[in-house]
Amino acid sequence: MTPTITAFAASPDRGKGLARDMRVRWALEEVGQPYQVRLVTFAEMKQPAHVALHPFGQIPTYEEDGLTLFESGAIVLRLAEQHTGLLPQDPHARMRAISWMFAALNTVEPSIVERSMAWLFEREQPWYASRIVMLDTRVRQRLDELSRRLGDGPWLDGDFSAGDLLMASVLLRLGSSGIVDAYPNLAAFLARATARPAYRRAFAAQEAVFLASQPPAG
Amino acid sequence: MTPTITAFAASPDRGKGLARDMRVRWALEEVGQPYQVRLVTFAEMKQPAHVALHPFGQIPTYEEDGLTLFESGAIVLRLAEQHTGLLPQDPHARMRAISWMFAALNTVEPSIVERSMAWLFEREQPWYASRIVMLDTRVRQRLDELSRRLGDGPWLDGDFSAGDLLMASVLLRLGSSGIVDAYPNLAAFLARATARPAYRRAFAAQEAVFLASQPPAG
Repeated sequence: MTPTITAFAASPDRGKGLARDMRVRWALEEVGQPYQVRLVTFAEMKQPAHVALHPFGQIPTYEEDGLTLFESGAIVLRLAEQHTGLLPQDPHARMRAISWMFAALNTVEPSIVERSMAWLFEREQPWYASRIVMLDTRVRQRLDELSRRLGDGPWLDGDFSAGDLLMASVLLRLGSSGIVDAYPNLAAFLARATARPAYRRAFAAQEAVFLASQPPAG
Repeated sequence: MTPTITAFAASPDRGKGLARDMRVRWALEEVGQPYQVRLVTFAEMKQPAHVALHPFGQIPTYEEDGLTLFESGAIVLRLAEQHTGLLPQDPHARMRAISWMFAALNTVEPSIVERSMAWLFEREQPWYASRIVMLDTRVRQRLDELSRRLGDGPWLDGDFSAGDLLMASVLLRLGSSGIVDAYPNLAAFLARATARPAYRRAFAAQEAVFLASQPPAG
């Protein structure tokens, strides 16, 4: 059965590939698994039918025969376990890649999301200028550490894995801030990740949804 | 081989069980796996020997024969895969429990950590009173959703799992804020979790480390 994921009917990032369905689309493309997408509006996300799938009323969800999952990290892990290409076969290397999945989501992403939330909700506040300095410092501390570990390697630990996929997805949320550009090896890591054909296909698919949601020009 | 974890030589939470080694100790106790602890100071955590184990210079780490892991979520998953008792045998139920592991760490914990960080680093700032209202609202939104899903059940999805262990660990970080008390079913969930013999043993072990780190009274 072709799995079905959910995504924003009109993504707030305007098709820049930063919504969390992008991680799942990318993983699906990496493993060559066709999928269907059901689009949901913000109103629909908080209604009982969607909350039954996702307790926190968010996207993405993932449905296959008899199984419903939420949380992009869990969905990527599911795909990585069902298919080859996203986790090493060696049991120890597999667990190390899973460490990087959790590191992306629990150690690196929170500081990046906090910075985005400040921009979204506090940039008109008198304290914003002071806080953003502090938040940038926290992000840079994580990137210092990440850059040091990555070193000259192409990926975080051996071949490309679900850990790299999630870490790249998280770093991309820094967008046009210029913060990643201060780390040439992290910028190169992102360039390698986003040049992957699977990433390009996933990006195009989510961008097409956004473009279709816009009224025709003229 | 008995695995070795790292923990704070002197935990900043003064033995309240909120440091991330507690999650790993609890999982080890749940599955009945003896372990050794190597204590590290804040200075040691940032030195090359520890950074080789943990790229972000944090605790806990986990070492067994030929394998080094970081990230408490990944370590708990490792233990859950090696032993019975923390993940269901049924493949679909297992993945749903893993969804709850990621939900604890990527959806619920960030809002709780952000609140703690504001208390630690911004409570002297003129904007603190305004921000804490906003941060509490974000935490409560997550707890509203979590409480609604938990309903009258003892655990989040069937029997106690690594998802419950991580979610309880995250909610405990709200400590004496009183926020959880507004949700009787979440308070009961925490009471059930912390009454487990494995939790009690893990708590006592980390508390003993803190007490031993203090100068003798008198």
